Amino acid sequence: MKDPYDRRIGELEPLIPLAGVPWDWSTAGRPGARFAPSAVRTELYSLTPLSEDLGELRWGFDDMGDVDIVGGDIVETGRRVVEASRHVMEVAMSRGVPAVFIGGDHSITNWTSRPFVERGASLVVLDAHYDIRKLAEGVTSGSWLRELVEATKVKALVVGVSEYANPPYAPSRAKELGVDIISRVELLKDFKSSLERLKSLVAGSKVYLSIDMDHLAQAFAPGVNSPTPLGMTPFESMSVIDVITSSAKVVGIDVVEVVPGVDATGSTPRLAAALLLRAVQGSLASTNVK
Amino acid sequence: MKDPYDRRIGELEPLIPLAGVPWDWSTAGRPGARFAPSAVRTELYSLTPLSEDLGELRWGFDDMGDVDIVGGDIVETGRRVVEASRHVMEVAMSRGVPAVFIGGDHSITNWTSRPFVERGASLVVLDAHYDIRKLAEGVTSGSWLRELVEATKVKALVVGVSEYANPPYAPSRAKELGVDIISRVELLKDFKSSLERLKSLVAGSKVYLSIDMDHLAQAFAPGVNSPTPLGMTPFESMSVIDVITSSAKVVGIDVVEVVPGVDATGSTPRLAAALLLRAVQGSLASTNVK
Amino acid sequence: MKDPYDRRIGELEPLIPLAGVPWDWSTAGRPGARFAPSAVRTELYSLTPLSEDLGELRWGFDDMGDVDIVGGDIVETGRRVVEASRHVMEVAMSRGVPAVFIGGDHSITNWTSRPFVERGASLVVLDAHYDIRKLAEGVTSGSWLRELVEATKVKALVVGVSEYANPPYAPSRAKELGVDIISRVELLKDFKSSLERLKSLVAGSKVYLSIDMDHLAQAFAPGVNSPTPLGMTPFESMSVIDVITSSAKVVGIDVVEVVPGVDATGSTPRLAAALLLRAVQGSLASTNVK
Amino acid sequence: MKDPYDRRIGELEPLIPLAGVPWDWSTAGRPGARFAPSAVRTELYSLTPLSEDLGELRWGFDDMGDVDIVGGDIVETGRRVVEASRHVMEVAMSRGVPAVFIGGDHSITNWTSRPFVERGASLVVLDAHYDIRKLAEGVTSGSWLRELVEATKVKALVVGVSEYANPPYAPSRAKELGVDIISRVELLKDFKSSLERLKSLVAGSKVYLSIDMDHLAQAFAPGVNSPTPLGMTPFESMSVIDVITSSAKVVGIDVVEVVPGVDATGSTPRLAAALLLRAVQGSLASTNVK
Amino acid sequence: MKDPYDRRIGELEPLIPLAGVPWDWSTAGRPGARFAPSAVRTELYSLTPLSEDLGELRWGFDDMGDVDIVGGDIVETGRRVVEASRHVMEVAMSRGVPAVFIGGDHSITNWTSRPFVERGASLVVLDAHYDIRKLAEGVTSGSWLRELVEATKVKALVVGVSEYANPPYAPSRAKELGVDIISRVELLKDFKSSLERLKSLVAGSKVYLSIDMDHLAQAFAPGVNSPTPLGMTPFESMSVIDVITSSAKVVGIDVVEVVPGVDATGSTPRLAAALLLRAVQGSLASTNVK
Amino acid sequence: MKDPYDRRIGELEPLIPLAGVPWDWSTAGRPGARFAPSAVRTELYSLTPLSEDLGELRWGFDDMGDVDIVGGDIVETGRRVVEASRHVMEVAMSRGVPAVFIGGDHSITNWTSRPFVERGASLVVLDAHYDIRKLAEGVTSGSWLRELVEATKVKALVVGVSEYANPPYAPSRAKELGVDIISRVELLKDFKSSLERLKSLVAGSKVYLSIDMDHLAQAFAPGVNSPTPLGMTPFESMSVIDVITSSAKVVGIDVVEVVPGVDATGSTPRLAAALLLRAVQGSLASTNVK
Repeated sequence: MKDPYDRRIGELEPLIPLAGVPWDWSTAGRPGARFAPSAVRTELYSLTPLSEDLGELRWGFDDMGDVDIVGGDIVETGRRVVEASRHVMEVAMSRGVPAVFIGGDHSITNWTSRPFVERGASLVVLDAHYDIRKLAEGVTSGSWLRELVEATKVKALVVGVSEYANPPYAPSRAKELGVDIISRVELLKDFKSSLERLKSLVAGSKVYLSIDMDHLAQAFAPGVNSPTPLGMTPFESMSVIDVITSSAKVVGIDVVEVVPGVDATGSTPRLAAALLLRAVQGSLASTNVK
Repeated sequence: MKDPYDRRIGELEPLIPLAGVPWDWSTAGRPGARFAPSAVRTELYSLTPLSEDLGELRWGFDDMGDVDIVGGDIVETGRRVVEASRHVMEVAMSRGVPAVFIGGDHSITNWTSRPFVERGASLVVLDAHYDIRKLAEGVTSGSWLRELVEATKVKALVVGVSEYANPPYAPSRAKELGVDIISRVELLKDFKSSLERLKSLVAGSKVYLSIDMDHLAQAFAPGVNSPTPLGMTPFESMSVIDVITSSAKVVGIDVVEVVPGVDATGSTPRLAAALLLRAVQGSLASTNVK
Repeated sequence: MKDPYDRRIGELEPLIPLAGVPWDWSTAGRPGARFAPSAVRTELYSLTPLSEDLGELRWGFDDMGDVDIVGGDIVETGRRVVEASRHVMEVAMSRGVPAVFIGGDHSITNWTSRPFVERGASLVVLDAHYDIRKLAEGVTSGSWLRELVEATKVKALVVGVSEYANPPYAPSRAKELGVDIISRVELLKDFKSSLERLKSLVAGSKVYLSIDMDHLAQAFAPGVNSPTPLGMTPFESMSVIDVITSSAKVVGIDVVEVVPGVDATGSTPRLAAALLLRAVQGSLASTNVK
Repeated sequence: MKDPYDRRIGELEPLIPLAGVPWDWSTAGRPGARFAPSAVRTELYSLTPLSEDLGELRWGFDDMGDVDIVGGDIVETGRRVVEASRHVMEVAMSRGVPAVFIGGDHSITNWTSRPFVERGASLVVLDAHYDIRKLAEGVTSGSWLRELVEATKVKALVVGVSEYANPPYAPSRAKELGVDIISRVELLKDFKSSLERLKSLVAGSKVYLSIDMDHLAQAFAPGVNSPTPLGMTPFESMSVIDVITSSAKVVGIDVVEVVPGVDATGSTPRLAAALLLRAVQGSLASTNVK
Repeated sequence: MKDPYDRRIGELEPLIPLAGVPWDWSTAGRPGARFAPSAVRTELYSLTPLSEDLGELRWGFDDMGDVDIVGGDIVETGRRVVEASRHVMEVAMSRGVPAVFIGGDHSITNWTSRPFVERGASLVVLDAHYDIRKLAEGVTSGSWLRELVEATKVKALVVGVSEYANPPYAPSRAKELGVDIISRVELLKDFKSSLERLKSLVAGSKVYLSIDMDHLAQAFAPGVNSPTPLGMTPFESMSVIDVITSSAKVVGIDVVEVVPGVDATGSTPRLAAALLLRAVQGSLASTNVK
Repeated sequence: MKDPYDRRIGELEPLIPLAGVPWDWSTAGRPGARFAPSAVRTELYSLTPLSEDLGELRWGFDDMGDVDIVGGDIVETGRRVVEASRHVMEVAMSRGVPAVFIGGDHSITNWTSRPFVERGASLVVLDAHYDIRKLAEGVTSGSWLRELVEATKVKALVVGVSEYANPPYAPSRAKELGVDIISRVELLKDFKSSLERLKSLVAGSKVYLSIDMDHLAQAFAPGVNSPTPLGMTPFESMSVIDVITSSAKVVGIDVVEVVPGVDATGSTPRLAAALLLRAVQGSLASTNVK
């Protein structure tokens, strides 16, 4: 089909820097997020730039490819991802747009967000999990936030932590770490008030936004490392994202934990792409780069 | 199991004329809607006639079989479908009930709705897409509404157009064509007001209702040509359909774009059947044919 | 991964007695619920004990294994299940906690609930179906509630009966039997008022709660005997369960009709486990066993 | 597509009597064979009548529908199936053609074959299992052959019994019962000699042939109650069937244990239909009814 | 993983011209072969160049992209494909290598093979079907060979025609058209003699080889328009291909009828790629281009 | 079902020591073999002990659980696995039976086989790959054999290396390392001679047998890290295994590279279990432990 006036995201003039981070060697559950950068890109670039309320997106992604990770080597990979992220951030800043990353398991955010945190950004995470574990042995994508906060004292907020998905010590440790929480149950009981609280928590700040796709209920996001039975709906996510992008200055965005191989319908990468694009367009809209 | 007082839709006295249109040669994306008339019928006829608020449906479908389409030949097929639709419409009118069609890709509505439009019906479409493309070359099920409006000047309304699923020129061209839009985002932001606006747009008119199953989010309707990540919920659809059938006089109904082969669980044909039945029963209720 | 302070439900001190009932020989539709006790347990025991609003669950399940059913022999199996249920109930009563059963098709509730009904419990059922059929021949999991009510005169309430899924005589027969109904449509039209009505119906009573997973829309619970196109959302279920456990004294809980073999993603057993755990924790919270 | 000289099995002049037996209440493993008569028929009737070596099949199936089984009631169902089979057999005999049955689980052969056995037919079974269990309790589709032989003293041969799929006592009990065995391993080690032995065992006799689809390796027949990792190939099956139909007089044929719901690709019903048709055509060829 | 001495087909020096033909509007059955050029390429280019008996392949594919087909327009598309094929052929001839095409449904071979046939090539087709239908109305990918032979009088041989998959008139019409047949049954009964006959039929001739993936049994090639229950094994295919490439001069090769969307495991594109590569390497080996 | 004389492998008296190694952090392709020890055990323990030619297996597995691996830490994990393997080997030797390991990706064999190699065992590997890569960076399960041979000078034979699945340098490097090869093509061209050569290569030696499930064609083993389009059949595997167990003294056996999550039908773990059991029983038979 040839529609001469159609446009796809992949055809727009490149502006927003984007990098993939195909690392999933920190996963304790179902691995496979290493294939997400490729799967999410395919969906992202075939979307059109028309939003019904935000209007037409004029700019596309400046795809810097995947970070050259070293499978199995967490130290060297971490070093390279932080370095790459710094470069992506600088390009983004010079253009006045957010930087975008596609994981990978959630441990990558400990690397991708570092340069932003060092520059004063706080963290907002959509996630069913607190990700503040401390292991005696082995790996997990569920400890990165604790490590990040301990290392940088960054102000962090997690939206969507879900029932029966976190260790019992999570709330008290979050409090110790100074991590704010808006739980999935809180959103369910009074969505409007929760959004108000969200707004007050992020208003005016510089934010790195991390979207772990398992914050969604498994019916909407079956293709993740650890599916969430009572997670959020994508409609709630969209509202949450809108509040963040319109109240804060979003400087970096990632989407993580998509495992394409366990989602035969391809719906999880497609939804990841749509939510990511909404976040990007909302961020641009609020910084007047349209 | 033998429950002597059970009833299935397929066992009721036939009254509402129904025809299948197994055409999907206009599809640019994932073809396979040619198998939908069979799959949707199976589900439809095994439903029971009990609604909890509309009561018991007394009448069943007068199944006129599938239109004898000619695979690959759009001109001859179009001719035959329009002719068949005229016959189905006349039977329906003589009985004071709506006519029902099961597609096929969405291009069939350009044919099935013609006789109704000629008799003064306006069009209401549930769809994630505007379907007002103009191609330089090739085929698409995304241009039929433009063709129909240009040919007939019919008044049309599309409910549910979705984010990042339409070409950037869609809103302005819709305006030029006089096509009204209630977007998915508008429904999300204020469902009640949107329904009010819907009501005011359709109240008192004679309506041909076309249900493209991709107006639903992909978690609810995975089995379509082009799945929609941020589409509507079936609960919203039901309310939208209820407003239409109770405010307008619905004279024709179709359900299109179901692709059974890409939905291993069979949920899309099943949901298509349930929404179709709701639309039919609502229409009968408001015309006092129960 | 080793997180020394993590806890899973399967590791907690056993208190709440639980039994599986792998019987599905009463199914007229898609059999396979015989495999549910194993599948639901796996998910249940791997959940963590942290709820965001109910806090940490301190006690786990005292797993009494599966009832030793006799495949194909409904009389002997019924006898054994009633006997086993009586034992489970007595243990539960002696500990001041609810008893838990994992089916099986829904016909098992006619057996598992008997001892509770004899002790004065009323019945609350989450179900897309009335389950009050009377067959001329053959088997069904859709007649157990009629049999139970006729035999025991128990007070019963069914929440979630869905469109086009029940025989036309259902509402009038329910009235004759004295079975109360809160339909899926009623919940959809005015959720808040419906919950109020639910509360008034169950407040202060002793309740056996039966959760048929087909009360959920098929997008959320594809792995059931008979999928429901317009069923409830798990978020609505959670609210309904919360109202029941906080208003009534829940003495027995079952979850039934999960068919693992038709749900390739495993989402139905996982959701069944989460809703079951919410019901258990809510019941304990309201009886001060935390 | 309209090819005026094409022919499908479902369009041929009906001659060979065929009945479905949708019973699977004797299954201890994965139930669902109740849906096989419908699924296998769909595939069977869409095949064409052209064999490359047997030529064109001139006659089609005289479909007598499904036996009116009583779900869950093994005694009454058995009575009805035997009665129906007797009728089908008589029609078949009067026409000089084999009778055909589509199960159901394998226990149906104990009923469908009875009238044939009483008339002197011996039994040849393609199966990964001996089906000569004796249960202390419960049901199985793995005991029917023992019951049949004990009741009728019929001469029986099982071809394809597979590794690690049968109880240790199977070979000695088979010997006691006088049941001959050609194992899957024997076929593997020397296919030609095995076929010779098969020929000598069946030559000149009147045979009821029962095809349990689990005699095939799971890669070829995934949709069965109990998949067989090291089973036969369909190419070996075809040769085995050819030897039987060309050496013996085949008077009855069944195909059993197809479970459509666990085979998303539909390959098992399709292969069942093709092997069944080969057996039928071979039988007709050797009795000069072409 | 970085293995500096590894090589993939996609990394070799481009020599063999290759074009995709994403046309499936002639399909009467399950459409979707329009997605095959992309899916087969992905698999093909990730294979390594090492054969255990043919040695290392030194040359890769000179990918000319997909022919710019016009969806739905068979006349214009045919014109373009023939023209493109002529160009591809000329490039191939100038380099002394075979030309390669990836369909699309089988009707494309009527276009891609034309320039080769005009230059004196005969046709060898691996296919479960004769593809010599004549329709009264509609489209099919099962008539192209008749059209081609009638138009060009080309000498053609079909290997692998399968049981119950062809219209009854097929053998006699093939004879009239002068099309030779080696059936799947013939291969099964005496593989060695069949290969001898194949060799004698193709020896010394210039051949265009068309591989329809449905010549394979459905267990090996589930992802095709029309799956074949008793088709060939890929091991037989490999031997057949080896005989052809070593006895004849293969000047053009296509692989058709892969429908990626109905093969969740991706095995059909992967096998198509491997057989295609074997055919290419065998052709090069016999023309001393290694 | 209760068959009092039935026996399952999981019920036999434990004798053959078995350990799981849930490590897949060396996988460059599709990870997920960490879930194989659990999945293969389930299938293995539900098989029966009856072989049609080897007779009844009298002894079961002495399950020592999974080695306590440290996710992500290859050095510590390697240390633990070697240590555990040494213990398992000593138990096996003291009982005169082979030791059994269930991986994990293929890199585990570098650890599990070490103690056996140190005691003089040679290695026989069923594999589509040579596994003798040398990486510049990153991880792979395709280098372990080179590492093992370089470290220990062990005599090794790989059976089943497949077309287009190995780097071009593989044959020459194998020669340098002294690794013998019987390729998949060689088996295809002359199975009988290949088995003779196999026999001559292994006769009389002490052998550690490693079964990588990807040596099988993808139709038989879809659930592996890297599926093989033209791999072996399980029937060929069985013959190969029989030659090895009857000609050599098999002291250790592993089965690796099963990825349960990408095989919805569960056929790969089931086939892995059956081939493993055949290898174990064959080994016992030849050492007179029955």
